[in-house]
Amino acid sequence: MTTPALSLPNSVSIREVGPRDGLQIEQPISTEAKIRFLDALAATGVGRIEATAFVSPRAVPAMADADAIGEHLRVTRRSPTGSILYSALVANPQGAERALAAGISGLEYVVSAGDGHSRANARRTTDEAVAAITEVAAIAHQAGGRCEVIIATAWDCPFDGPTPVQRTADIAARAVDLGADQICLGDTIGTTVPGRVVELIDAVREVTQGVPLGAHFHNTRGSGLASAWAAVTAGVTMLDASAAGLGGCPFAPGASGNIATEELVYLLENSGIHTGIDLVAAMEAARLAEELVGHTAGSNLVRAGGPSRPLGERAT
Amino acid sequence: MTTPALSLPNSVSIREVGPRDGLQIEQPISTEAKIRFLDALAATGVGRIEATAFVSPRAVPAMADADAIGEHLRVTRRSPTGSILYSALVANPQGAERALAAGISGLEYVVSAGDGHSRANARRTTDEAVAAITEVAAIAHQAGGRCEVIIATAWDCPFDGPTPVQRTADIAARAVDLGADQICLGDTIGTTVPGRVVELIDAVREVTQGVPLGAHFHNTRGSGLASAWAAVTAGVTMLDASAAGLGGCPFAPGASGNIATEELVYLLENSGIHTGIDLVAAMEAARLAEELVGHTAGSNLVRAGGPSRPLGERAT
Repeated sequence: MTTPALSLPNSVSIREVGPRDGLQIEQPISTEAKIRFLDALAATGVGRIEATAFVSPRAVPAMADADAIGEHLRVTRRSPTGSILYSALVANPQGAERALAAGISGLEYVVSAGDGHSRANARRTTDEAVAAITEVAAIAHQAGGRCEVIIATAWDCPFDGPTPVQRTADIAARAVDLGADQICLGDTIGTTVPGRVVELIDAVREVTQGVPLGAHFHNTRGSGLASAWAAVTAGVTMLDASAAGLGGCPFAPGASGNIATEELVYLLENSGIHTGIDLVAAMEAARLAEELVGHTAGSNLVRAGGPSRPLGERAT
Repeated sequence: MTTPALSLPNSVSIREVGPRDGLQIEQPISTEAKIRFLDALAATGVGRIEATAFVSPRAVPAMADADAIGEHLRVTRRSPTGSILYSALVANPQGAERALAAGISGLEYVVSAGDGHSRANARRTTDEAVAAITEVAAIAHQAGGRCEVIIATAWDCPFDGPTPVQRTADIAARAVDLGADQICLGDTIGTTVPGRVVELIDAVREVTQGVPLGAHFHNTRGSGLASAWAAVTAGVTMLDASAAGLGGCPFAPGASGNIATEELVYLLENSGIHTGIDLVAAMEAARLAEELVGHTAGSNLVRAGGPSRPLGERAT
């Protein structure tokens, strides 16, 4: 039996989501601490950073300083690190207006593929959330910005169970029709696995007219990095990850969160796929992230002390 | 851009290595405790179990009861769980004789691809270890047993650095010539990544004349499950894993060990690949394993509380 040769990309663009998805469920840390974190991330060479979320400060207290973060980035973007694309999550047209007013033109608009998750998280149906893409995209485009649509619960909804592949593909197709510049498939609760990843990506790519497609995985059940690799083999070249693997679930204390940026860099770079990220700097950012939130997160690479090989281990 | 469709196998045979590789570096637990563990594993439906190692009790105190374990299995193999293939690791012809005398006919003979690791671990060169395959295989075959050759440090040696692909492939080819019934590639120190996995497997399969090929990964740097998936996509249908992810490195306290059996079952079964293992029973065996060694191990699935989806998580 022979297998077809893998057609791997030369590079993958990682988006660091630690400052938003990683910190979202943590006890709020100071704006100054976040800026230290953002600066450490900028020093890694990462090209895209999800900096904050313009959402209700009552619902997400950890993101209450979104405007201040935007203001900080407006200043630092004139610095030598100005080539980083900063983005922010928004949940509605009002959030989009706030983000643009704060100087962040990379909008991530979230719709949940699962109706149950959509109602619980955003108090509206999936259809209602999808319909608003038109307005969010128009707001972004009028300001010279971009509108990425993140499809949350793309594989599984915590309320509705598995999301049918066709349902997520239909949402992606409609998002493109309504003005989305980019699509991201979110494994919101960390349940998907490589076989399902390849199946959904193939289905979505068929109906999204070449619009750039990214993916967002959590390592909650151990499959996150494997799903990321599967996504790359299926042609995805944009992946989300979080320093130290921050971003656990508030309902599963101790559970792992997003796939860890430094682990993804280690995996891809050693597989011959460039990320532009310096692993030593990424490890430093991961350690800072753990220091700022006051606890360790899910990164095996941090636990192992780094990429170097300890001496004297026994077989096998 | 289109990608070639994955040709995935219908099933993968998992070998549970917790009783040997998982316990090897732990403080020795009682033979009775090991038998509880072996019984819990047998109840999961797993088809192959690495039960123990016939090696120097001075070098590996945790495996000093190998003969007693063999005797126990000789009895229980007459039970309804008799379809399980038990195997044992051996380091030389004397170990092979001991294993067969104890009733274990599935021999795993280890050679280190890295000379540095071979000298440190077995006080001989790689060439000397390879040359002994003839004798170990003859001993196994005369007793009606099987001789699998495990190539340790197949990707990286903690002393010599990266192992050239050609070196490992040459060792595999010679092992087959000298009588090996099966080959297993061991990522001994948990450093490899999917791209390197595919490369080495392709090279080894080219020179091993269709002899069955397995792979053994550690999750020390977070890539273990991704490497396992990559191996499956490259045609490997035999994988090692350890309940709860037991099997850390004595020189990196807190580091993750083998890939966790329950995480591998979760990943494969939900990707449509059968393992024959019941996930609920595998989770029970993992919890027992942690109880017996007295600490948690590296399984995210255990930390998450299992495969079910917690309610109410936030996007994305």
